[in-house]
Amino acid sequence: MDAVTILGLIAACLTTISFVPQALMTIRTKDTKSISLSMYLLFVLGVALWLVYGVYKADTAIIFANALTLLFSGFVLFIKIKNDVIN
Amino acid sequence: MDAVTILGLIAACLTTISFVPQALMTIRTKDTKSISLSMYLLFVLGVALWLVYGVYKADTAIIFANALTLLFSGFVLFIKIKNDVIN
Repeated sequence: MDAVTILGLIAACLTTISFVPQALMTIRTKDTKSISLSMYLLFVLGVALWLVYGVYKADTAIIFANALTLLFSGFVLFIKIKNDVIN
Repeated sequence: MDAVTILGLIAACLTTISFVPQALMTIRTKDTKSISLSMYLLFVLGVALWLVYGVYKADTAIIFANALTLLFSGFVLFIKIKNDVIN
């Protein structure tokens, strides 16, 4: 595995795990006031399309990274919708 | 251009422009309370590495998408640091 591929894997890990602290903070505080609903709607849709893209390309790295990102960012979106739309 | 490539471009556009509404909301409200600092630190670092990765691969789509994402998410991070750390 060459250095550039390793760089890509580190980048993918960082952008994927970055949603974990936001999901944990949202669980703890239940506060989503300063989080943009349209950001998460667009982002979750984009990540879902990246996942479909990875399946078509049979690219495990893209599938794995975007499946996790979809899970965490989708959770934040769920809490945001629950707070803003339902309650 | 085949359908899967178009799918990838749409996914890249969505995940890139998704940070625009968050940046605009942060400009308008100056409120970053429910935004996770560690999320944006990890995410901005990850996007920066994706940008370096794109330069090494000479992949204009990856360079373009991540340069924009870095700009918008970097701005939100700047306001978050200003609010939480400096003020």
